[in-house]
Amino acid sequence: MAKISSNPVEDAPAAQSSQKRDAACRVALVGFGTVGRAVAKILCEGTDRSLRLTHICNRNIERKKQPWVPADVVWTEDFQTVLSSDADIVIELIGGLSPAEQMVRGALQAGKSVVTANKQLIAHHGPDLLQLANSLGCQLEFGASVAGGVPVLPALRTGLCGDRLHGIAGILNGTCNYILSRIENARIPFSEALEEAQARGYAEADASEDLDGGDARAKLAILALAGLQTRVAPETIRARTIRAVDAVDFDYAAELGCTVRQISRADLKGTTLFAEVGPSLVPISSPFGRVQANQNLVVTSGQYGGDIAFLGAGAGGDPTAVAVVSDVKFVAENLAARSNASRRDVARYVSTPATSSDFETPWYLRFFVRDQPGIVAKLAGILATHHLNIDAVLQKPGFDKATLPFVITLEPCRDSLLHPALEQMSALDFAIRPCLCLPILR
Amino acid sequence: MAKISSNPVEDAPAAQSSQKRDAACRVALVGFGTVGRAVAKILCEGTDRSLRLTHICNRNIERKKQPWVPADVVWTEDFQTVLSSDADIVIELIGGLSPAEQMVRGALQAGKSVVTANKQLIAHHGPDLLQLANSLGCQLEFGASVAGGVPVLPALRTGLCGDRLHGIAGILNGTCNYILSRIENARIPFSEALEEAQARGYAEADASEDLDGGDARAKLAILALAGLQTRVAPETIRARTIRAVDAVDFDYAAELGCTVRQISRADLKGTTLFAEVGPSLVPISSPFGRVQANQNLVVTSGQYGGDIAFLGAGAGGDPTAVAVVSDVKFVAENLAARSNASRRDVARYVSTPATSSDFETPWYLRFFVRDQPGIVAKLAGILATHHLNIDAVLQKPGFDKATLPFVITLEPCRDSLLHPALEQMSALDFAIRPCLCLPILR
Repeated sequence: MAKISSNPVEDAPAAQSSQKRDAACRVALVGFGTVGRAVAKILCEGTDRSLRLTHICNRNIERKKQPWVPADVVWTEDFQTVLSSDADIVIELIGGLSPAEQMVRGALQAGKSVVTANKQLIAHHGPDLLQLANSLGCQLEFGASVAGGVPVLPALRTGLCGDRLHGIAGILNGTCNYILSRIENARIPFSEALEEAQARGYAEADASEDLDGGDARAKLAILALAGLQTRVAPETIRARTIRAVDAVDFDYAAELGCTVRQISRADLKGTTLFAEVGPSLVPISSPFGRVQANQNLVVTSGQYGGDIAFLGAGAGGDPTAVAVVSDVKFVAENLAARSNASRRDVARYVSTPATSSDFETPWYLRFFVRDQPGIVAKLAGILATHHLNIDAVLQKPGFDKATLPFVITLEPCRDSLLHPALEQMSALDFAIRPCLCLPILR
Repeated sequence: MAKISSNPVEDAPAAQSSQKRDAACRVALVGFGTVGRAVAKILCEGTDRSLRLTHICNRNIERKKQPWVPADVVWTEDFQTVLSSDADIVIELIGGLSPAEQMVRGALQAGKSVVTANKQLIAHHGPDLLQLANSLGCQLEFGASVAGGVPVLPALRTGLCGDRLHGIAGILNGTCNYILSRIENARIPFSEALEEAQARGYAEADASEDLDGGDARAKLAILALAGLQTRVAPETIRARTIRAVDAVDFDYAAELGCTVRQISRADLKGTTLFAEVGPSLVPISSPFGRVQANQNLVVTSGQYGGDIAFLGAGAGGDPTAVAVVSDVKFVAENLAARSNASRRDVARYVSTPATSSDFETPWYLRFFVRDQPGIVAKLAGILATHHLNIDAVLQKPGFDKATLPFVITLEPCRDSLLHPALEQMSALDFAIRPCLCLPILR
């Protein structure tokens, strides 16, 4: 890994960029993986003379070098070389919290503006880093950190900033969406869909971060920051895994006019931010129900503009690189136009509401039971004790009586009211798997 | 109508705004119709202290005044009052070419930045006005001129600027989409759907500009300017009317897995811009096929980022006002940050390609005929003479033999090859209506 400077340059940051106002903006690239290569390619192929790639910083540069990179680009394994260079903009594409955070802080302290695609970094330290950038007269942009090439973060900064948003929901994780749409289309078990995704490179060997919602909730925290002006720690957002979703759930969901997707959603109501990530039933006819494979979708809900949907490639080198290069152009334009640029009104991000996952929705409860008389009566009895109203009981024919799946849907109630009933039901001896409980979104 | 200044203020424009750098940005609103009222409402309700509404200019102001507008806002019928005021930003919402053009030029020459929702003005004079704004150190933004509240123009300026776009397609006219989706859902005749749209306020008494494509092609010209960096006169874009679309076309389209929508599309291929507006067959499963009522959809196609879709409310006071206020905030931020702002690189807009509507696509030909033997043979004969390949012949049962609809679909060919065949077919004596010829988009 590239070394971190512990000795940031002490020059006044703003002066450095203004001196080069008429020259091309000098860009250093840190991290030369799939996205880094695609960014370099766009910068090198481009006819845009206002940007010049000057450095590429990565481990094992000898194995990374590409013939299409101009000869005057400096290849280095030492981040200090970038820090002490005259680069105006540092693109951080190494990902993860450490050493990326130190690198970004170092670059800002050296008077360089930063463009990053690092979702964990922005989700955890975005407000502080924006504050730091502001105080140093530098810029920090992170348009690629959510939904890859889908320009939802730039839209929140520009075309939607005149609205007052109260909700954001999205399909933010391509791996989950690939797996769920494979189960949907081929009715294969979860484990088979996961193996297939791994074989095709859509899922990592350890895909926990994707499957269990860690990736998506970092992105949701960033969307809540940029769109709802709320500061929320990703860990405080409840994440439910998609591992428990079975092919049979798509059969039952279809009976309800729905399909199953991993949905990330945040609703600001008064001083509470309702937020969660997890598999949910969505109508087949809704924009969410139609998102296939590794596409991403984000829907913003505003007081004046209503719902706006953004759909496109949520990952991949080239689409993510578009978001990175767009940010670089934006920062470069600002650098060219003024000596002390500060794009972000950090004060807008001070709201730190209580976070809750206690949404009120209708619910889908799917049971696998060893069939015996009186099952529905027992479950209905427990639900009645907790004042929960059954909407429908669905049982498709043709299943083995030893592992019989069936579904109960509930009328809208709060998650917190449902939870004690679920605990009681999971203790019943005929349940051969824990009940799968999914919100039904309309 | 408000008067136009023939005597623009001669002060150095940039100095004027920089003097007020620390104060709120002063905003004058010209045009107080549906959108104007919604803009004023957002500006007056808002907690944003960086913007202050100072003037409202309209005809018949006595009948327009609203109790929720603060008492210190100046109401005037004389645009000269706005011009000679200390407003930093003029919002032009009167629409049409004249006197809007003179007003916008006057405002720019008086050193004021301009935000407009005027599609005709930007479609016809956008590049010149941007040039003028640039030369005067003012800003000109027009994010509300296409697709109302759907932030596609801001996205082209920001999150997509790192890509190289080669195509843009959209459903840009809410009136056409309302009428076509009503015919689709209720299978009513065109005339009935139009009357209904007029009764509900979705179509004007003279809806020609909407139905015949004039409105959409102005928007397409703006998208081509902002997204493909091409300057194209709206009149050079072919526009086909939707008036000839019949309920039966939705039956036949459904047989082909399609529906009918007014599609505006522009593809840049080498030095030619292929562009047209008109009813087209689109797959029911595509984003275009699912757009209902007065929603707008825009899909951009880029070399790196692939297809990105933007969907939302394409018209209406509140959504359009969001786009206007977002532009105002953007301009105000720039004014606050620098004395001589110039956001637009006008040089990007110099490309003036040849315009063509000679797309190569499969085609849908719908005939209404007086039934007699040999019709298909005759039509097939003509098509064969012109080397056009039939893909399918569709004839649904149950129609009156005196006005029998049936459909021939053709394999992909250029419009210019099809045209002579259509002329020859229209001369046949059994045709009781001109053949309806729609491209099939995949």
